[in-house]
Amino acid sequence: MSGSILVGLDIGGTSVKAMAVSPGDPTGPALAEVRHRTEPGREGIRDGITTAVRALVEAVGPATDVAGIGVGIPGFVSRGAVSHAVNLGLGAEPLDLLPTLRGLTSGPVGVENDVKTAALGARGWLARHDAGIDDYALLNVGTGLAAGMVLGGRLRAGATGMAGEIGHLVFDRSGPVCPCGQTGCLELYASGSGMRRSWSGTARQLFAAAEAGDASAVRTAADLTDGIAHAITLLAHAPDVALILVTGGMAARNPALRAAVSARLQHDDRTLVGRAVPVAPRVRWLPDDVAVGTRGAALLVAEEVRV
Amino acid sequence: MSGSILVGLDIGGTSVKAMAVSPGDPTGPALAEVRHRTEPGREGIRDGITTAVRALVEAVGPATDVAGIGVGIPGFVSRGAVSHAVNLGLGAEPLDLLPTLRGLTSGPVGVENDVKTAALGARGWLARHDAGIDDYALLNVGTGLAAGMVLGGRLRAGATGMAGEIGHLVFDRSGPVCPCGQTGCLELYASGSGMRRSWSGTARQLFAAAEAGDASAVRTAADLTDGIAHAITLLAHAPDVALILVTGGMAARNPALRAAVSARLQHDDRTLVGRAVPVAPRVRWLPDDVAVGTRGAALLVAEEVRV
Repeated sequence: MSGSILVGLDIGGTSVKAMAVSPGDPTGPALAEVRHRTEPGREGIRDGITTAVRALVEAVGPATDVAGIGVGIPGFVSRGAVSHAVNLGLGAEPLDLLPTLRGLTSGPVGVENDVKTAALGARGWLARHDAGIDDYALLNVGTGLAAGMVLGGRLRAGATGMAGEIGHLVFDRSGPVCPCGQTGCLELYASGSGMRRSWSGTARQLFAAAEAGDASAVRTAADLTDGIAHAITLLAHAPDVALILVTGGMAARNPALRAAVSARLQHDDRTLVGRAVPVAPRVRWLPDDVAVGTRGAALLVAEEVRV
Repeated sequence: MSGSILVGLDIGGTSVKAMAVSPGDPTGPALAEVRHRTEPGREGIRDGITTAVRALVEAVGPATDVAGIGVGIPGFVSRGAVSHAVNLGLGAEPLDLLPTLRGLTSGPVGVENDVKTAALGARGWLARHDAGIDDYALLNVGTGLAAGMVLGGRLRAGATGMAGEIGHLVFDRSGPVCPCGQTGCLELYASGSGMRRSWSGTARQLFAAAEAGDASAVRTAADLTDGIAHAITLLAHAPDVALILVTGGMAARNPALRAAVSARLQHDDRTLVGRAVPVAPRVRWLPDDVAVGTRGAALLVAEEVRV
């Protein structure tokens, strides 16, 4: 131990989570973890970052040097600035986080969309469960729908920073109008916000009601199931990643949803295209307790840190 | 000139095209080009390769050394073997082309799906028209629908070799059943085979009839337009490539189709997501006379050739 830490921050709508890892072993055990409530708004977010980094230094030891900081945050991220993060109170005007981060470390800093950092953070779990795979996507099915991709070991940002933003691709050209203005977007089906168009409970309650025979629940559960299966198939066909890791609030602690999506994919795998290249065997349900957000944020800058 | 050539072969359902380039300048002028009719079937394809390479050597000069050969061919390609190329008379049993190629050169050989090689072959045209772009997709709208992607300068094969095979992703969940067994596949809309479900002429005739007010033509033209626009948007959102180059028989010499697709994308660019990241400015219609197939096949192996 050199007395220096690498910090990964995961800023969500509910809480700010932070993890300190060793710069020499960024996928190794966490040296410390802290968490506090998110304060939305520009000042709240900046202060939350400072508070979390100071708390980690406290936790590890007073002479600790911060060797680098990575941040995962919802919304659209470009060159260290974030915008369009509704849950954080950020609109179209970008909030540049780089000055705050540079005030806390002289080492490398980085900011990326939270689903992309989570994809990077799944690397450690993958290494333990599917050793050798460096080409995969993480699909987050929460309030919204988005994916992050690691292609050939490298996080793909995309030409405009939007890689993996599949929620507003059309899934049902004959479907309802989406709040975005288009028709039949995938996010109307494969997300919590989509589910809530026709169901007021949780996703677990939805599948319980569907199993009990509630006709409305059966329809909404089928929409959710088919939408998630389509998102997985899209990642299997278009970028053609080796594995798709599924995570997010809709899939968490929801074995009935997982079983339904798997059954749908197995059904599609019996069609002509499915038989040639099956999709179902390429799905992994990420366990709910794997800390991919903070870990991935730390890995954003790990390669740039001088150890 | 060292007296050696690099060969690119483009094997299509109608003709076998071949190009010889200088190994030291693989994106430079063609040293020779030949073309002959395709003979379908396993022997026909193997003989066609040999014939084309020998003809190129004849054309360049009798002492010419073949420094490497790349092949682009329709169907599913894995480790030099091709299968599922219906127009070439190939079914599920793979045809291994490597022995044939190795009989014609002691240099590197490579085989890849023809849309992927075409994507690689567009590099030279791109360099002249959008210098500095090394992240793009080529979308081929022909009898079928498929894309090839070059990400960060490298052709993406995908984990299963299927990267860019977007034709059997669902576009209309409430739509008709596809010959593949699924429902509402994109290829039912954005392809020649899709168009021919409800129109017996060419794509140019379709748009002429639609402009003249034929109601059936208007519907089919809208299906084709929306499907192609969706394929473009998919490539802009999921891998998020900087540019999408569109080519293929449906788009060739068809300014009415190009205008309709552009208008549709401009319409979508006025929605919430479109305003954040517009798609229409990222489209390029590849001119019909750019030889991307043979060029891309040569580029498949160009880096491995010792100059």
